[in-house]
Amino acid sequence: MILLDGKKVSNDIKDEIASQVKTMTSNGEKTPHLAAILVGTDGASMTYVNAKVKACERIGFNSTLIDLPEDTTEAVLLDKIHNLNDDSDIDGFIVQLPLPKHIDEQKVLKAVNPDKDVDGFHPTNVGRMTLDLPCFLPATPYGILELLERYNVETSGKDVVVMGRSHIVGRPMSILMSQKRKAGNATVTVVHSRTENLSHFTQKADIIVAAIGISEFLTGDMVKDGVVIIDVGITRVPDETKARGYRLAGDVDFESVSKKASYITPVPGGVGPMTIAMLLKNTLLARSMHKS
Amino acid sequence: MILLDGKKVSNDIKDEIASQVKTMTSNGEKTPHLAAILVGTDGASMTYVNAKVKACERIGFNSTLIDLPEDTTEAVLLDKIHNLNDDSDIDGFIVQLPLPKHIDEQKVLKAVNPDKDVDGFHPTNVGRMTLDLPCFLPATPYGILELLERYNVETSGKDVVVMGRSHIVGRPMSILMSQKRKAGNATVTVVHSRTENLSHFTQKADIIVAAIGISEFLTGDMVKDGVVIIDVGITRVPDETKARGYRLAGDVDFESVSKKASYITPVPGGVGPMTIAMLLKNTLLARSMHKS
Repeated sequence: MILLDGKKVSNDIKDEIASQVKTMTSNGEKTPHLAAILVGTDGASMTYVNAKVKACERIGFNSTLIDLPEDTTEAVLLDKIHNLNDDSDIDGFIVQLPLPKHIDEQKVLKAVNPDKDVDGFHPTNVGRMTLDLPCFLPATPYGILELLERYNVETSGKDVVVMGRSHIVGRPMSILMSQKRKAGNATVTVVHSRTENLSHFTQKADIIVAAIGISEFLTGDMVKDGVVIIDVGITRVPDETKARGYRLAGDVDFESVSKKASYITPVPGGVGPMTIAMLLKNTLLARSMHKS
Repeated sequence: MILLDGKKVSNDIKDEIASQVKTMTSNGEKTPHLAAILVGTDGASMTYVNAKVKACERIGFNSTLIDLPEDTTEAVLLDKIHNLNDDSDIDGFIVQLPLPKHIDEQKVLKAVNPDKDVDGFHPTNVGRMTLDLPCFLPATPYGILELLERYNVETSGKDVVVMGRSHIVGRPMSILMSQKRKAGNATVTVVHSRTENLSHFTQKADIIVAAIGISEFLTGDMVKDGVVIIDVGITRVPDETKARGYRLAGDVDFESVSKKASYITPVPGGVGPMTIAMLLKNTLLARSMHKS
């Protein structure tokens, strides 16, 4: 069993980007600049955004964090977005999700200029992804493709089961792995809450991407020997033996599944770190697009 | 075995639209207006476009056919598209595909105003479809959903195999049937030219949508008893017993598969007529959108 070490690979990617940034700035080119908007004080969201800002610093990007109170109106948020759209120094920006309930998420995502939409959530980018046209790939699926590629996991012709049909992970993942591309050309099945005989699909899968948000749902008896496991889930499970009172668990029961898997991502340290690395890669792409 | 009679259902839909148009015009509202651009003299394309124009006449839509020579430049075509975008009398329009090789298809499709893109081919519409937001659904997949719905074919939780990953049929079909919607909530697998053990997937499928463009590829030994078959293929197969020298064949070997199927679409007279009906339905939707 080989661990798909997202922490290590994402560090490699960050090093590669850092060296590209060095070359750019020594050539007198503009430094890439990523901005993030955070609305409210959700703990997980603050952690994610801070990690993104920190990653920018490490690789030599400029970063801007726009921190808005929980009761920010939709109009004020849209105004901030328009400012970032118009600011030629900003190459790309993200609006950290989820947003407070009084704000229409789709309206907000639609307001982002698709050329600065480094999260790849704007309908135009989603459409371009679906049509296999150049675009900003959503960071989590993009990170999974990169992880599979760097570990030389064969996907062409393989039986891939994607668990979950979310807009952010399951759906794009299933589309991308089915396209003619690196880490693609797979035969992909999307299973979800309405699927009958779920184990019937997982038990014959060569590769499983678990993204349903139910901790330790996929157990050893549901997979075959040699399966490749990508665990996107990350849930806090109460655990009194831990000082902070919880542990982090994925959608996969690591103990039983790892005994049968050929490759498996740990949680944490698997998919999570890759997501940030790919956001940085998208920002670098945005910079090169805006240059021309 | 029950034939999924696309000819009959599409006529029902056209009658429904015709009666809506009557109500609209008797209320003094504007008559819906569909335009089509045809470049060149490809036989099949001419047949399709003429059928669309004829369908408009039958249901009381206004229609405009813009017929351009094979050697039309991309610039001239883009100019025509901009005119239609700006013409407030035109509710929706299509550019008949395929285009001559010297024209960049994606550039052309991108030029169509998404609010008039009744074929649903613009990246923004494709993205909105992928995100399950209101949009113009591509006509062929939309027609298949409608056909399944009108025959009360249960799809929720069913094992659906979509054969083919084209932008126009296979990909959107697989996304739509997997979403939470009528004729949706299925467990969908996309198989294609790189799939290993294809029969392994088709033999256990409850519903198969065949859209690979290889005549009579799917045979009786590849399906299980009671399967529901949607045949999107339509190919001319040389046949000396026919006066015109060919017969029309689907992707499914009707003779052997129909013996095992519970429902099956004939070719012709199955999916084909539904496609035109749904284009008209999209045009009606465009009209109602532009009203407000």
